[in-house]
Amino acid sequence: MHKKVAVILSGCGVYDGAEIHESVITLLRLAQRGAQVQCFAPDIAQHHVVNHLTGEEMPESRNVLVESARIARGAIRDVREAKAEDFDALIVPGGFGAAKNLSNFAFEGDRCEVESDVLALAKAFAAAHKPVGLICIAPAMAERIYGPGIECTIGCDADTAAALTRMGARHVECPVDEIVEDSRHKLVTTPAYMLAQNIAEAASGINKLVDRVLELA
Amino acid sequence: MHKKVAVILSGCGVYDGAEIHESVITLLRLAQRGAQVQCFAPDIAQHHVVNHLTGEEMPESRNVLVESARIARGAIRDVREAKAEDFDALIVPGGFGAAKNLSNFAFEGDRCEVESDVLALAKAFAAAHKPVGLICIAPAMAERIYGPGIECTIGCDADTAAALTRMGARHVECPVDEIVEDSRHKLVTTPAYMLAQNIAEAASGINKLVDRVLELA
Repeated sequence: MHKKVAVILSGCGVYDGAEIHESVITLLRLAQRGAQVQCFAPDIAQHHVVNHLTGEEMPESRNVLVESARIARGAIRDVREAKAEDFDALIVPGGFGAAKNLSNFAFEGDRCEVESDVLALAKAFAAAHKPVGLICIAPAMAERIYGPGIECTIGCDADTAAALTRMGARHVECPVDEIVEDSRHKLVTTPAYMLAQNIAEAASGINKLVDRVLELA
Repeated sequence: MHKKVAVILSGCGVYDGAEIHESVITLLRLAQRGAQVQCFAPDIAQHHVVNHLTGEEMPESRNVLVESARIARGAIRDVREAKAEDFDALIVPGGFGAAKNLSNFAFEGDRCEVESDVLALAKAFAAAHKPVGLICIAPAMAERIYGPGIECTIGCDADTAAALTRMGARHVECPVDEIVEDSRHKLVTTPAYMLAQNIAEAASGINKLVDRVLELA
């Protein structure tokens, strides 16, 4: 019954890292469902550091793994140490970190690339036909992991959806409290803060995503 | 029905700031119960910065308000702008930030002082007989807010409980999924990560605390 789930974090803070609410809601639901969780993050510099009070860039440098460790209370490992064979499922919360650190979607749009170690791990889960959950903007990486035709959602933002479509993904509109599932590939996605007006709305979709990922595992 | 709750954060990360899980669980439960929340933090330097991967101090400086803004997604204000008359209740999550930034309990123990603006705000809630919730190690500030005889819990850690007792508080042992209430003063406390072995355990007590604080408001 104790399913093992890998969670990839991308820093600590919505504007330059992992979205904190989405990450904690994911970890909470996984624990409440009895899953065993191991957090991972790439040991790389953040793209940049944003002052979350002002929105302005700060003249300093922070490490994605070190900052992600704040959300994980220190219980986190380098994503290069993660093996898909050790886990039943993978979940990636959103936040700009998914589009600035785990990939460069925030800057390159439909020409984006996914960080090599993150991509290798996610592809290994896909190849093993193990379920993957991508939250918020993280589905921007879906086509690079699964290839053209993969079905996913980032909610209903037209520009972002168009970029995913140009990459070859099949975007499906989705309300904040729902999930989209590509049954053939066992990919589950939910918009979370791409649409959520508050933390309770974000939780409504994330809880469904976690539950469905565990069902598929 | 929309009760207004002020939440004081103390940074962003268990070892040098607000405990992230406790903070997000508090915000989530408040939103799920329909409360209107405003986050606050003192605009002061953190006591220090801890690398949450290694546990070692880092040679940099961070601001409590700026880092707390990560948890609040930018929706946070200087605690000096907070007025008890604008709110129905106050909640302070734990993490070492409560004992290093909001107070100096981590260093001074029973001779600790509470940061002056935080103390003034908390005392105003107490004087107005409005409910206050203190989570994890935050009850170390209870005696300074309410004076001798205040009833509270930090769980069952003997050394910490003894320090609270020496300060004049009346410490009550409490399991992780329960709360202690000083009915006369409307102070509600819960151990959270002073005892919790995982995030679901922390949530069990925090959810009860939030619910009770809202009932009292």
